[in-house]
This record gives sequence, C-alpha cells and structure tokens, in this order.
Amino acid sequence: MHIKDMLREAERDGQPSFSFEYFPPKTAQGVQNLYDRMEKMYHMGPKFIDITWGAGGRIAELTCDMVLQAQSIYGLETCMHLTCTDMGLEKVNDALHKAYKAGCTNILALRGDPPRDKEKWVAADEDFQYARDLVKHIRDTYHDNFDVGVAGYPEGCDDNKDEEQLLDHLKEKVDMGATFIVTQMFYDADNFVRWVGKVRERGITVPIIPGIMPIATYASFLRRAKHMNCRVPDEWMAALDPVKNDDVAVREIGKHLVADLCRKILSAGIHHLHFYTMNLAQATRMVLEELDWLPTSERPLKQRLPWKQSLGFGRRAEDVRPIFWKGRNKSYVLRTKEWDEFPNGRWGDSRSPAFGELDAYGIGLTGTNEQNRKKWGEPQSVQDVADLFVRYLKREVDSLPWSESPLTAEASPIRDDLIDLNKRGLITINSQPAVSGVKSSDPVHGWGPPNGYVYQKSYLELLVHPDLYPELIARIEDHPDMTYYAVTKDGTLKYNSPTDGPNAVTWGVFPGKEIVQPTIVEGISFMAWKDEAFRLGVDWAHCYDPESPSRVLIERIMNEWYLVNIVNNDFHQQREIFEIFQGLSVKEYDDIKPVSQNGESANGVATAST
Amino acid sequence: MHIKDMLREAERDGQPSFSFEYFPPKTAQGVQNLYDRMEKMYHMGPKFIDITWGAGGRIAELTCDMVLQAQSIYGLETCMHLTCTDMGLEKVNDALHKAYKAGCTNILALRGDPPRDKEKWVAADEDFQYARDLVKHIRDTYHDNFDVGVAGYPEGCDDNKDEEQLLDHLKEKVDMGATFIVTQMFYDADNFVRWVGKVRERGITVPIIPGIMPIATYASFLRRAKHMNCRVPDEWMAALDPVKNDDVAVREIGKHLVADLCRKILSAGIHHLHFYTMNLAQATRMVLEELDWLPTSERPLKQRLPWKQSLGFGRRAEDVRPIFWKGRNKSYVLRTKEWDEFPNGRWGDSRSPAFGELDAYGIGLTGTNEQNRKKWGEPQSVQDVADLFVRYLKREVDSLPWSESPLTAEASPIRDDLIDLNKRGLITINSQPAVSGVKSSDPVHGWGPPNGYVYQKSYLELLVHPDLYPELIARIEDHPDMTYYAVTKDGTLKYNSPTDGPNAVTWGVFPGKEIVQPTIVEGISFMAWKDEAFRLGVDWAHCYDPESPSRVLIERIMNEWYLVNIVNNDFHQQREIFEIFQGLSVKEYDDIKPVSQNGESANGVATAST
Repeated sequence: MHIKDMLREAERDGQPSFSFEYFPPKTAQGVQNLYDRMEKMYHMGPKFIDITWGAGGRIAELTCDMVLQAQSIYGLETCMHLTCTDMGLEKVNDALHKAYKAGCTNILALRGDPPRDKEKWVAADEDFQYARDLVKHIRDTYHDNFDVGVAGYPEGCDDNKDEEQLLDHLKEKVDMGATFIVTQMFYDADNFVRWVGKVRERGITVPIIPGIMPIATYASFLRRAKHMNCRVPDEWMAALDPVKNDDVAVREIGKHLVADLCRKILSAGIHHLHFYTMNLAQATRMVLEELDWLPTSERPLKQRLPWKQSLGFGRRAEDVRPIFWKGRNKSYVLRTKEWDEFPNGRWGDSRSPAFGELDAYGIGLTGTNEQNRKKWGEPQSVQDVADLFVRYLKREVDSLPWSESPLTAEASPIRDDLIDLNKRGLITINSQPAVSGVKSSDPVHGWGPPNGYVYQKSYLELLVHPDLYPELIARIEDHPDMTYYAVTKDGTLKYNSPTDGPNAVTWGVFPGKEIVQPTIVEGISFMAWKDEAFRLGVDWAHCYDPESPSRVLIERIMNEWYLVNIVNNDFHQQREIFEIFQGLSVKEYDDIKPVSQNGESANGVATAST
Repeated sequence: MHIKDMLREAERDGQPSFSFEYFPPKTAQGVQNLYDRMEKMYHMGPKFIDITWGAGGRIAELTCDMVLQAQSIYGLETCMHLTCTDMGLEKVNDALHKAYKAGCTNILALRGDPPRDKEKWVAADEDFQYARDLVKHIRDTYHDNFDVGVAGYPEGCDDNKDEEQLLDHLKEKVDMGATFIVTQMFYDADNFVRWVGKVRERGITVPIIPGIMPIATYASFLRRAKHMNCRVPDEWMAALDPVKNDDVAVREIGKHLVADLCRKILSAGIHHLHFYTMNLAQATRMVLEELDWLPTSERPLKQRLPWKQSLGFGRRAEDVRPIFWKGRNKSYVLRTKEWDEFPNGRWGDSRSPAFGELDAYGIGLTGTNEQNRKKWGEPQSVQDVADLFVRYLKREVDSLPWSESPLTAEASPIRDDLIDLNKRGLITINSQPAVSGVKSSDPVHGWGPPNGYVYQKSYLELLVHPDLYPELIARIEDHPDMTYYAVTKDGTLKYNSPTDGPNAVTWGVFPGKEIVQPTIVEGISFMAWKDEAFRLGVDWAHCYDPESPSRVLIERIMNEWYLVNIVNNDFHQQREIFEIFQGLSVKEYDDIKPVSQNGESANGVATAST
C-alpha cells in the first residue's frame, strides 16, 4: 500500500497514526534481535516502517534483505530509504528491483552523504547529482509502482542552512513526483509549524510527516540533537539537565516533553508522526502510551485476517492458510515463497502441492543446542516432556519446538483443558477454541472489517502414544461431528474426512462480502506439515548428546507416536473435543526413565480406561 | 451420476429408492404440461428418470430435447433410452452425442421394435442386429462416460418366449458392458423372484431394477398387461373386476395391490424400483404414499444446495448463483448456458460477465396474453397491482411475472411483513428471510450434507415509487448493517456496497468442508437481471391493449420506478429490513386511476412520513 493512501485513510478516519524507523544493525545477532523487536512492535500498530539505507556493500544488501523480511515474514508495510549520489545507476536499479520483488511499494529518495574520505563532494554518477534526480529516475522506470517520499529540513540541512534554497530543492523534488515529505528530527514545535507554513506557501501540497526522536538517555539525546543540528528548546534543557544522570527520570520527563511536542504538531493539522526508534522499543512505547495511541482491548489492533498477512510480492491477496503453521509463520512464508499464486477466497482454487524444501534456511529448529537445552531442559521421561508443555501453557516458557511465540490470549478458554491433556501425556502442539459468531471487533477473537461475525471450529493437534491411538480413533470415528487426520513419521495416513478437500476451521461473515475462510485443515498440506513437525522433534532430540536419555526419549516419541489433528465441526461445542480423551493417559517408558525412587517401575506403557 | 452408483448409494443407506419413466408426448402443449409435471414430481424424490426413445424423426429429436431439459433445467438425473436396429450408425451416434452434451450419463440400450410396415424383421445397419451391439458400441465410443443399462424380460419378450435364450441374450449384453438391468412391467412377484434367481445362476451380478406399472384405470391396466404379455395374478383380477367401472375404487385397490407387489420385491433383496408413470403423477404418487416413501417434514427431500442444481454438461460443480433469478430458474440456466465454466466455491472466480441474450426463447414472459390477463387481472391502479401481489403472497395466485412458481414455505416467517409492504404499494418481487444457523436437516430452510448449519441474510427486492426512493435510500445508508443496489430501467445504478464484489446471502457450514456459499448479491449480475426484470414488466404491460389503463399503468411503473435490492448483513435480524419502510406508502397516480367514487382525487402520488 502506498504511504500517501495510508495517510489519506488516517486523515479520513480522524485517528492519529504513526510509523517507526529502523536502521540495519551491525551484527548478525543484532539483526535477529531487531526482527524480534520489529515483530513485537508490530503490535503497537505502526502504519508502516522505514528501513534506512546502509550505503555500500554488505549493509546495502542488508537493507534490501530487511525490507524483504519485513514485508514478507512480518507483514509490515515498509518504506525503503535509498540514496543516489554515492551509488551509481546500476546499484540504484538493483536496489529498486529488490524492493519491488520484496513487495515494497514505498521509497524514501535521498541524495546521500558524501563519503567521509573525499574532501570535495563528487557524485558517483553524473545523472544522480540530487535527490530530485532519483525521484525522477524512480518515476521514469517504475511509474506508479512506488510511492516516493523525500526529506524535508525544518531546521536546515547538514551542509546547507539556506532555508529558501532548501525549500526550492523541496519544491523541485515534489515537482519530479514525490508524494510525501518526511522531516529530519526536531524538538522545536513552533519552528516546525512556521516551516510547514512556508512549505505550503511554495505551493507544495503533499503531506508532511514530522520525524520524532524519543528520548532514551540524556547522552544520546544531546548527541543526536547536536549531530542533526537540531535546536533544543531551553525549557527542555531546563527539565532534563537536573536529572541527566538518572536514565529513568530522563525517559519519564522526556516522554512528557516529546508527547507535548506530538500534541502541538497534531493541533497544527498533521495526522501522522514518524518515530526514529533508533532500533529501541521502550522510549517510543512510552511516548505512545502517554499519548494513549497504543491498541487496547477496547480499541484493538485491526487485523484483516486472524493470522498475520504477508505483504511479499504477489501475496497481498492471499487469504487462506492451513492451520498447521499457526505457530510457525516464517516457515510457512518461506516454504511457499516459490508459489506462482496464493490461495484467495478458497484453498482449493490455487493451492500448490509444493511446500518447498524442508531443508531451506529458517525452516528447521532455531537457536543453538545450548540455548535450547537451557530453555527446554533435559527431559528424562514423558512426564518431563509433558511438564515442559504445561509450563508453556502457563506462559512460564515462551516457545516450544512447534511454537515460536508465547501462548496467545486466544487460547484462554481452553487453557485448562490443554493443561489437563498434557499432564496426562497427550502432548498438544497446536489448538484453537471454538468460536460461534462473536463480533469482528472482539478484542481476542475478532478480525476483519467492522459489523461482521467470526467463527472457529475447535481444533486440536497432538502427539498420541501408539497404545492410546486405536481407542482415540475409534472414539473420534464414533462421533458424528468430528473429523481427523492421523499420521506417523513414516507417513502412514488415516483420516475420516468426507472428501480429501479442505475443511474451513475459521471463517467470517461481513457486510457486502463473500464468506472469508482464512484457515483450513486439509490432507496434502498436513502431509507437508507432518514432515516439518517430526523434523522439529528430531532437531530437538539432536540438541542432546547421542545416547543421552533426553535424545533417546524424544527420538522414540518421534518414531513411534502419532501426529493427530482433530476438528469438532460443531462450532457450538467447546469442550466435546476434550471429552473424547476421557480416561486416556500415557504411562512411562520404563526403559528410558530412571527407576523411580521407591524402586517400582511401571509395567504397562499406557492405559486406556474407557 | 451413474445409475450403478446411485443404486450402490441406495443399498448402502438401506433406504428404498425409486425412479420414474416418461415418454415424449405427441403435442407441444403436452410437452410443456409434462415438464410442469416432471418438475412437480421432482419433489417426490426420484433418484433418476427415464425418457423413452421416440424412434424416427421428430420424436427422436424430442427425446434428445427432453433429456436436455430434464438434465439442465429441472436438475433431474436422466437415463435416455436408445434403440439401434431401426436407426443406423449415424443416427445412433448423433443421439449419443446429444445425450453427452446434455450432461446425461446413463443410456438404456435397446434393440428396437421392427417397423410395423415390414413383414420380415431387417436391421437398418448390419452392425446393429441386437441390443448387445449397441452396448458394445457405446462402450467402444464413450468408454465409461455412460452407464449402460439393458432390458430384462421376466415374462418373456414380445417376439421371443424362450426364457433360456432370453437369459443367454441378457448375459451377452452384460458381458458387453451393461451395468444394470431394467425389467419389463410385471404383476407376478413370485415369478419375478424366480426369474432373478435364474439370472443370478447365469453369473449375472449387476443390479436388477424391476419395472412397476401403477394402476390408473381398469381399461388401461388390462390393455397394458395384454400389450406387454404380462400375466395378471388371479387375485388381482378378482379384486379389480368388481369395481372396474369405478375409477376411484380401481386406483384405491390398485394402489394396495401394487404396493404389496413392491413390498414383496423389496423383501427379495431389491432396493430400487422403476415406475412406469405413463406421464401421469397420481397413480404413482398413491403407491409411494401407501409405501410411505414420499418425503415428509421429518424426512425431507435432500437438496445439495438451496436452489435446484442444473445437471447440464459441465454444470455439475456449479454451486454459486445470484439470488435475482430465484423465481426464474429456467431463465438463469438458459442465459448462462454458453458459459465456459460455472462458479464453484465462490462467485468471483469464474463468473462470466455475459448473461446471454435477453431475447432468447424461454427468457421472456410465458403464457398467452389472454392467459396472463385471466391470471393477473386488469389492474387499473397501483392498489390493484398491490392486491395481485398480496394474493400471490396469500397463495391465491400461483405465479407472477417475476415468479414462475407459487410462494414456498420458506417465505412463511416474513409473509405478513411482505403483505404489509405490498398493501402500501411497495411491490416486492423477491425476498428471503434471515436464518441464523439452523441445522442443515431443517425441513424448510435446510440443505446440504448432514450435521451442518445453514444461514441466510434477509433480502428484499422491490419496485419503489420515485417519490419514496430518496427517503428509503437515506434510511438504508444510515443503517450500518444494510447494503443495497438500486437501478432504474434506463440503468442509473446506485449502491453502497463496500466493494463491487459479491455479497454471500446464503451459506452453510458442514463437517470437513469449506464454507459453501450458494447464493450471492452482486452488481454485474444485478444489471443483467435488471434488464430481465423490467422486460418482464413491459411484457406484462403488453398483455393489455395499447392505451388501456392497465398497459399505461404498468408501463409507467416500469419507466419511472426504481428496482431496489436490500440485504441486512446482520443475519440475526429478521424484522429490521421491514422496519426501514416504516411510514412509507405509495399514493395513486390520479391520471391513470379512474376518478374515485366519491368524486375526490388524491393530490400527492406518494407520502413519506418519517
């Protein structure tokens, strides 16, 4: 989506909106940490994010890669910064092509700083002397594919303090086709408002997005203000200087100062603010909290679908996915990235049977063996595994091999039932509660446009001990409302679905629309997921030394147990899906578990009392 | 669907099933009457129907045409009879091709009678000497496309009484690829059971469908038995002879005799009966009633979708239609018959913008001017038109220009509201009540597989006087749940749908399936329907003499009023859609209506009290 359209939407809704800016970190670990942070900050509800341009070699590549990840994996509408004078035509075109193929539709066109080791400023390409040349080039080559923004300088530019000349340049950039302006950081609201007046006097009518720098520490505040030649109002200094050695106090006072700045800007008729996050969440979050702009349960983050959409190239219309990858969004996006088209409206129409390579980067278990052992412990028995899953359900552990993220609020209605199952050795790796027509604005289960109703069939996916399996399947097959697929690691599939077509397990009814059915259960994709699910378990086993009880135990579960998914098709029923497990529980493997303290060892491995 | 599969289904369900046989009538009026009867008898629930082969010229054409109509318009699975010895290769191939293109998948392959004027029996084509030659030819040319049945003769054939030889022939026909046997009529159950035993002894394992001839009158009963050389048990004669001049008594006694015959056959392990209806409904219906095999509210006719599916060529997967043609099924099938593919799963994927020619045969108003004037009267005022619509809603009139069939039970929850609207001059031409999740087995609103839930948004389509129009539209636009399309005859369209995409107004949730959404409201198809809707009104006007008050009135309504459809997207609300009309009512055109008896004439033509 173009930024100009997002701004128009924000103006029409009369709701202030905001965006976040990030820069490419220097280390690989820093990049991964930033992705995690970007994902968390997604829930603060930015309209879009900016990734700054890391001029030259590896960092330029990293900007392009971050844009791709943000768009496709994290579903964040992204504006890529791009400089021209230090790049040359070929590199500019390469960057634009990568942005285009990443599904990115917004570019902030910049001139670029002169390289530090050159005394006199020389452009790398004579066609790229100024930012306006880049604006023109993007328009000439990509027409309306990209929305193009340019920089504005309310307090003058690094190498140019002549306001009139800078306004001339701004006018030229807009005349070349720029449709929005992002300003450098500033703290002087009055000067900004004055400057906006001058911009408008020049006949520049495109939206102006003020750049806001929240205050993290006193030192960084001063350093940045100085670096950007940004005037700090006296009263700001007077407020911050007395507490300069107290980071907490600086952030607290800074929050009020920046929030006041934001309020002044808004009262001047601006609807959207751009936050220079400096790759940190806290200071920005504090300002947004102070402004009361963060999503709340009364004003939840609007989601078009119950899962996070990918904004990757050609994926925007995608609106159906199998439920299996619910806890592994990134893997799903990666495994399907080669698809020619994505399912839209219904799974059956355009699904591909090809779920990509299981060995692709990013699909296996993440984290080092040591990290994973630390996080998930060293289970010696089925009970130990069960305990780990119970701790995840109690939010004492924030991920599992099959779930990248902590348990969501969505699971609350069935959390006790899930805990009960796991305690009995029925290891649940995915689930959703039944939802029978709650409003689409519901803070927990809602999604989609207003005035709609959303529904879910209860779903359970779990690892089932082979001794419990026959009894469980018999009970499911006896139940008129339940359908299931069950499979072992070697691929023996059993199911009772009426056809091998998809089963919609999440859907929504909205004014003036066809029924939206974004989540399905289906055989072919289950077989693809099965490989991944067992692989994740084997990867987990391999975090432990060969012959260690943990590795033997987990490998045995992977080799012998069944992966079973169950849908209760009567979406009015919440607890029935748990009731079919009544009396079933797993007993220990006595050849893995150390002999118990009282010297007895269990004989049977499982009991099914019906 | 192949008859052998339908028989397997019936056997598996343990429910007796049955089929009807019709023959091509001699006159055009007879053909139309038969179609009407076939449509009514559809609701008796036959698994399929047979159309006998009218050898030679026009009647052969008629058989092919009836097969086409039955499959595509009436949604009846049809078995076409075909003879060979009197036909020749070219005619046989032509008939098979027509059946294939009609979507027909079942052929009863027969030898054919020798022409009456030939003393000695000579086949028209040396390759077609016997029915088995035709069976082989169909298998060779169409492989498994057609299911092929053959005739069986439990009491011997017209020109051959040698049971062993006839069984030899039967074995040959089955060996050539026939997969079911339909017997000639018989009344002797014991002989039939004996004969079935002999068939099985020959190693013939395909299903045997007994042909049953219900008793309509004594004369026809005797004539047919004699014609078919069919033995009549003594006790039948003893029961019928005493009442032979009392048709009612004959049918009553005949019903019991034939029902007993059916019961004996069933107890011999047969699951499907074929009724020779002789193009009449009553005698067959009486037997089915006596057997308690007719659909009831506890055991409703199963419908896969809420509307009657076409079984025309390439149409079997069709499962989405615009609501507009709800009362005009035939017109919709005809107008879309040239489509390359039909919408399946969702409208958006495969709908064609081309709704065929409005002037095609069968799309305009049916009935002669005289018949229509008689049926719909000669309205002189808006009130007269309104009264006609009220009489339709009270089931005192069985069709309207926009509704081919009488009001269905489905309309009951909103009938009083509809009557109230029409009384106020708001002429409703289509509607459906809101349904919020009733079981798919519901006798009135249910459809689709068992253990599902079905839903509807309330829908109203009506003709609105131009003076009421602005107020009505303002009220709809004020309501957060309502969407509408409104159009005049000349095509000025207004709507408030969120996009121009389809709005699903009927949908169902079933075990193991995607959401089925068989009925939609949508702009492009509404514009196609609009032309038809106004055309039907103009056709109606033209049933009256030029300058007559009825013609002037109806034409004026067509030229000036708005065709408006409204959906209440909150499907929990039943009455809201009527409440928005509160206080709106149409006053008369005083230049059309004769001056009222008390000498006063209304001034305004409409009032909108808000």
